[in-house]
Amino acid sequence: MDKAVILLSGGLDSAVTLYIAKSQGLSLKALIFDYHQRHKKEIECAKRIAIINGINYRVAAIDLNWAHSSLIDKNIPTPVNRNLKKNNIPVTYVSGRNIIFLSYAVSYAESIGAKKIFIGAHVQDYSGYPDCRPQFLKSFQRAANLGVAKTGIKIIAPLINKSKKEIIKTGLSLKVPFEYTWSCYGGGKTPCLKCDSCRFRMQAFKELGLIDPLLKKL
Amino acid sequence: MDKAVILLSGGLDSAVTLYIAKSQGLSLKALIFDYHQRHKKEIECAKRIAIINGINYRVAAIDLNWAHSSLIDKNIPTPVNRNLKKNNIPVTYVSGRNIIFLSYAVSYAESIGAKKIFIGAHVQDYSGYPDCRPQFLKSFQRAANLGVAKTGIKIIAPLINKSKKEIIKTGLSLKVPFEYTWSCYGGGKTPCLKCDSCRFRMQAFKELGLIDPLLKKL
Repeated sequence: MDKAVILLSGGLDSAVTLYIAKSQGLSLKALIFDYHQRHKKEIECAKRIAIINGINYRVAAIDLNWAHSSLIDKNIPTPVNRNLKKNNIPVTYVSGRNIIFLSYAVSYAESIGAKKIFIGAHVQDYSGYPDCRPQFLKSFQRAANLGVAKTGIKIIAPLINKSKKEIIKTGLSLKVPFEYTWSCYGGGKTPCLKCDSCRFRMQAFKELGLIDPLLKKL
Repeated sequence: MDKAVILLSGGLDSAVTLYIAKSQGLSLKALIFDYHQRHKKEIECAKRIAIINGINYRVAAIDLNWAHSSLIDKNIPTPVNRNLKKNNIPVTYVSGRNIIFLSYAVSYAESIGAKKIFIGAHVQDYSGYPDCRPQFLKSFQRAANLGVAKTGIKIIAPLINKSKKEIIKTGLSLKVPFEYTWSCYGGGKTPCLKCDSCRFRMQAFKELGLIDPLLKKL
């Protein structure tokens, strides 16, 4: 079985990505990041998704305390009911986050002999995050392969052109346990339902005429 | 004063790079990495070089325990008296090291509004390390600028085409205190003088008809 590394955040997108990768018969290893995010709950969700699937995981602790982001700095409030149509970069942006995550993934992949790295990045949900764009991912793949000894590493973002609704539909067909995924940025025990991340998720389930399994569980 | 980030390892190259950047009148912030390297002494040297120059530094702890490298894994002996002419990648190679270091630097630079990142990478000394090559650095710069919100970040490697001898000459002209730099991979209290890193350094000082100030101090 070919090995692959999956970046697992505990969110809905990376969970669906994991099930897609799994359906391709790959032997997966998960990388989870503790970057002191306010929404620590997603780390527990990521671990659970890995465990449910019998996938080994590593939690890499990284310190980005210089980043002015509401995901890290408790003095910056999580934006609620933000105008999602405005294409500006919200304070939830963590500078260089995917650049760093992918760098670790490249190191890990090369070390274990994996040629594929899966990431749940996609266009609709990036909220203006530049490090979720396909042109970044392609360019990073090129750079990474110039920086490693064993080349041929591919960065695969199977959701890149999917809407949140399509991602959930894909996940349903693959029996993704959405009740064990976490999207809220707020840092609370229950989803705030007001931050960008909650609203993207809510809207997509609503469009599909479904109740979010996570909310059912509460 | 324009801000710049410098990757400071505690070695000779990054120290010279720091003095070059300083001579350009930049306001420098140093990033030092504790990646559980066997040669921890270099971290103390890096801090000292920063302090001597009144430069703020941050030490980022990163865990790369999956990498099969003699710099991290004490079960892998540091190669001594290796044939330096052979162009194979030695066991001192740490997969993805500069990719990760530069990723942190990009995040830090964007967060503090710095547009320049200095790295001491150079061609002669890379011992076959792919992440020290100019084509990697260029490609990484391109990728990084696609992954950040505030673009225009430059990765500057002023030593890239210099030999070790030329680097030391440059450092001498800038009054780099070489006695506070550390190159040995061995992890001992004094340089082993047998590992690749010691030998490159010794040979360069010898070619210049000088005694390494670090050895004078011992």
